[in-house]
Amino acid sequence: MNKVVKIGLIGLGTVGSGVAHLLKHNHEEILRKTGIDLKLAIACDIRADEIGEKNSAITYTKDWKDVIADPEITIVIELIGGTEPAYTIITEALRAGKNVVTANKKLLAEKGRSIFETAAASDKTIGFEASVGGGIPCIRALNEGLAGNRILSISGILNGTTNYILTRMEEENKSFNDALRDAQEKGFAEADPAFDIEGYDAAHKICVISTLAYGRWIDFSAISIQGITQISPLDIRFAKEMGYAIKLLGISKIAGDEIDIRVHPAMIHQSHPLASVHNENNAITINGDMTGAVTLHGKGAGSFPTASAVASDIIQIARGNISLPETSAFSEAKYLSSERRITRYYMRLRTKDRPGILAKIAGAFGKHGVSIASVIQKESNSEFVPLLFMTHEAVENNILAAIDEINGFEFVDGKATLIPIEDSFANR
Amino acid sequence: MNKVVKIGLIGLGTVGSGVAHLLKHNHEEILRKTGIDLKLAIACDIRADEIGEKNSAITYTKDWKDVIADPEITIVIELIGGTEPAYTIITEALRAGKNVVTANKKLLAEKGRSIFETAAASDKTIGFEASVGGGIPCIRALNEGLAGNRILSISGILNGTTNYILTRMEEENKSFNDALRDAQEKGFAEADPAFDIEGYDAAHKICVISTLAYGRWIDFSAISIQGITQISPLDIRFAKEMGYAIKLLGISKIAGDEIDIRVHPAMIHQSHPLASVHNENNAITINGDMTGAVTLHGKGAGSFPTASAVASDIIQIARGNISLPETSAFSEAKYLSSERRITRYYMRLRTKDRPGILAKIAGAFGKHGVSIASVIQKESNSEFVPLLFMTHEAVENNILAAIDEINGFEFVDGKATLIPIEDSFANR
Repeated sequence: MNKVVKIGLIGLGTVGSGVAHLLKHNHEEILRKTGIDLKLAIACDIRADEIGEKNSAITYTKDWKDVIADPEITIVIELIGGTEPAYTIITEALRAGKNVVTANKKLLAEKGRSIFETAAASDKTIGFEASVGGGIPCIRALNEGLAGNRILSISGILNGTTNYILTRMEEENKSFNDALRDAQEKGFAEADPAFDIEGYDAAHKICVISTLAYGRWIDFSAISIQGITQISPLDIRFAKEMGYAIKLLGISKIAGDEIDIRVHPAMIHQSHPLASVHNENNAITINGDMTGAVTLHGKGAGSFPTASAVASDIIQIARGNISLPETSAFSEAKYLSSERRITRYYMRLRTKDRPGILAKIAGAFGKHGVSIASVIQKESNSEFVPLLFMTHEAVENNILAAIDEINGFEFVDGKATLIPIEDSFANR
Repeated sequence: MNKVVKIGLIGLGTVGSGVAHLLKHNHEEILRKTGIDLKLAIACDIRADEIGEKNSAITYTKDWKDVIADPEITIVIELIGGTEPAYTIITEALRAGKNVVTANKKLLAEKGRSIFETAAASDKTIGFEASVGGGIPCIRALNEGLAGNRILSISGILNGTTNYILTRMEEENKSFNDALRDAQEKGFAEADPAFDIEGYDAAHKICVISTLAYGRWIDFSAISIQGITQISPLDIRFAKEMGYAIKLLGISKIAGDEIDIRVHPAMIHQSHPLASVHNENNAITINGDMTGAVTLHGKGAGSFPTASAVASDIIQIARGNISLPETSAFSEAKYLSSERRITRYYMRLRTKDRPGILAKIAGAFGKHGVSIASVIQKESNSEFVPLLFMTHEAVENNILAAIDEINGFEFVDGKATLIPIEDSFANR
């Protein structure tokens, strides 16, 4: 006996129209595989008059309240993004006894606690596979596939725009600005790219998945966030020479009761599984105490891949196979203080080319207990020469104090560019 | 309110003892995450007298019937492997109203249809995440995460033993026999390694996952299986020179209504995501019509990773979150006939070193409509020289007919070594 499930969809943009396409195109395949007859019954968009198909079985509306008011709809899909009215829509839908599916990482990162609590109080569920990693089923892998593990760390390439830009810079030796323009022309970057290139999108995603992984309420504002606008082709070329790649990573780790969570460009060794993730692809490594590292790789954005993630939630809800996270057992996150964070850094300086400079810089590092792993200085005909350092592991605050001192030397032009080195996730 | 779920475990070998460890060690973590209080109540092993812990809350028995007879047990875990008594245990457990978890790929590949039908008739479910890919949650990814997709193809490194051997051959230039001995010393290969190195283990796994992916009953005997015993260090070195790696792959594709399913060593380009899967790791690429390629990478075997997969099934069953595949909608598989299979081949020959040979070989290929993509011939001081070819795409039967003819030339020593080239799964 097939089971009919009626769906309401709010937001017919890139992802929403992908979902509508998937539900139509793969209707028979889903029915065969699951016995569930999914019907998109009502769709809401402010442009409903233009994009609504004539003679369609779907009712089009401009008012999201029509979707929630429809008693036959059991699953509401929110795909408009942003904070409002998305928050109100999701909350009202849950309270009206609907299950909800959303791709809204910003909202979940900022107001996830309130949304999960409303869902629990309404005895309804919320699917959000599409909020992290696009078509990669990483939320399902974490909550279900790796449910028997204590999660130790997560690291991922979570933003396709920045990974596309870094790939173009690496493969074509492009400047950041040229690579950004290329990404915009190909549709991989927004006209206003700040949200992606400054690291906020990746931060929302690492916040959502880490909250679930560790069962701690992570405050979005506690995440240290750095984007890729400071990366130069020089950094990428030198990274390559030293056997590294530069990737924008979202990273979280738990040690004891303390969480270290951040987004920044990182040097990772070329043998690291995330080093070979190219172009707009995403990948995420989840480190469980029983499995070790499990890495998932695929398309992190785009209409159809993201629609696949939304469909996964719809199907799991229709089967009755999604459990809400047990948020009643969640605790407040505590964070690793930067006095105890151990890391390594890459540093690029422009200095005058004269004797004694290297000794002064090495002296500043030594004074703060930081030892140098490698140095590259190349010949140059200009007044200033680039000087590259990689440190050994040290307390982050000590490294930063040394670099502050170095930035103050009169022979240094401007300020040092800093990129953390991530060794700890290697998985061979 | 926590829910108590009592479990019976049959088989306390490597995986079974890993499961017992996991259920004890991560009991609180699982309770916190899911609200489920998992209790291992009874464990069965023929060595129960030796390995049963004294003063334990677990009852130890040597008779699997004790587990099935226990009315408090709702989930029975079968981890003894092989066909019998595993088949009888699983069938009896389902008929007795228990849900079942198993890692038994051989049994599922050979008797999956009967087991799924028994489960459906008993209105019980069966979890088998651990049967493919060890700790990698690939069954869950396929059935749940990618449920909205039509699956087009699957390819994977599904056997850790053979991947370890090929990695040692590649990185240390070892012979097959030396690499096998190394694998045996490190515990990555059995004393009798035939099952792994001849490709049967990988074939069982590609059979299980492909049956689900395409909703077709695949006959295990229809799978074309070739192991890695013919691979020489020469092949690996030449592959490397041409930008390729040699991996033992399980591959299945569906085109129209026809399934192409096989296990063999394959040349894959170094940029292929499976080319960088080293040592005993596994990886699997699932190609969905909406997501494109999704690749999952991790530990494909071992006590704790496999226990993680078993625990995932236990937890999903305890949550009521596993659906049986809708096997009533499955159909009989039809297979791609080899007259229509298009592929490329790598061929290594030993020939006498004299003029005109290359022309004769090229002539044989040309006669069968096969064109040559590349040739390598190296200088040599011995009577016979190695000669390497890579063909362009052609009908497989034509390539094989040409090679039959070439094997018959009097200047050829022995027979050609053949390795298919897989280009079609590249994912950048």
